[in-house]
Amino acid sequence: MKLYDYPGVPNPRRLNIFLAEKGLDFPRIQVDLMNGEQLTEDFRSKSPNCDVPVLELDDGTCLSQTNAICRYLEAVYPQPALYGRTPREIGLVEMWNNICFTNGFQAVADLFRNGPDWFEGRALIGPHHYNKIPELVERGRQRINNFYHDINNHLRDKDYFVQGYFSVADITALATIDFAIWSGTTIPPECKNLLDWHQRVSQRPSIKANP
Amino acid sequence: MKLYDYPGVPNPRRLNIFLAEKGLDFPRIQVDLMNGEQLTEDFRSKSPNCDVPVLELDDGTCLSQTNAICRYLEAVYPQPALYGRTPREIGLVEMWNNICFTNGFQAVADLFRNGPDWFEGRALIGPHHYNKIPELVERGRQRINNFYHDINNHLRDKDYFVQGYFSVADITALATIDFAIWSGTTIPPECKNLLDWHQRVSQRPSIKANP
Repeated sequence: MKLYDYPGVPNPRRLNIFLAEKGLDFPRIQVDLMNGEQLTEDFRSKSPNCDVPVLELDDGTCLSQTNAICRYLEAVYPQPALYGRTPREIGLVEMWNNICFTNGFQAVADLFRNGPDWFEGRALIGPHHYNKIPELVERGRQRINNFYHDINNHLRDKDYFVQGYFSVADITALATIDFAIWSGTTIPPECKNLLDWHQRVSQRPSIKANP
Repeated sequence: MKLYDYPGVPNPRRLNIFLAEKGLDFPRIQVDLMNGEQLTEDFRSKSPNCDVPVLELDDGTCLSQTNAICRYLEAVYPQPALYGRTPREIGLVEMWNNICFTNGFQAVADLFRNGPDWFEGRALIGPHHYNKIPELVERGRQRINNFYHDINNHLRDKDYFVQGYFSVADITALATIDFAIWSGTTIPPECKNLLDWHQRVSQRPSIKANP
């Protein structure tokens, strides 16, 4: 197997944290995102949505979408389980993973990709070109602020998104929040549960190894 | 267990098709979406993103987000498997399920929820109010057109999104496309693979029972 990667950006970071938690590693090929290598026909044949990361299996099958790669790896290397150990945990992990991605990650992407510093015509990941919509910058900022407060409420008296169990939902949330901070937002000081969680999770070796 | 439901709208429809494929049924409580019952504090305590469907487990745990409920049910009732039977299928199902949701479903939601016929301040699902952004209507239409062509290419020589295997990815795609058609778009006549797939999948008993 080999991994098409680009270190430091949020989706590859999610996968690399997951790999570190599992103790897995694969040969890596760097994709030159800043020069648009992901948009070439050759790369699109491996990743229909022109995104990294991509895991190429030994039979040539290419898996893209971070959760798809992680689900494959969870099936092949079940321990430690990061998508839940019981049906109830499996449901809760998927629920919070989805909520963090939709309400958090996509909001940061809107803020970032519609702003003045990003490439024109690249407002959405994928093979197609969409112009920026400047209103999405301010809406993205509002959504992130609401996201901070909502997950702060959820984390009251919890160590992780699913109480007692570090999971993919925490990885997605951490990558989202660090992306939001990098994009110029700040965790509000009144969000004490979230600040505690962020500090605790950031100390994990898997996360310190993938800053 | 009991299910908070609202028949006919796209996310509950995805779950109801999934239940029919599994041969499962649960007592149902209808949530009055048109009068905003999903936005009440009582319902929000069951569904943090104020969306249906919700599955309430016997221990009181509430699962929201369609994929979270389906993942829970797949863990408890593994057969027939709808998220993949092998690691490779598991990866491919998640990949196409994600791509169809992000590039298709969310594009239709943008088209629909930012248009003149939808409630003001309800441009996004969730507890918070966001105003419509009219540019998202036209961008939604462009994205759906690209989505139709992209999945038409993917479906060349395939019976389902994952060749030889009907899965959750087909359910998400079908609910997305019917939502897109209901929202005023048309599958382009040159998208023959997609039209064939749509006709084939629409004949399944699970889908005919949940129009």
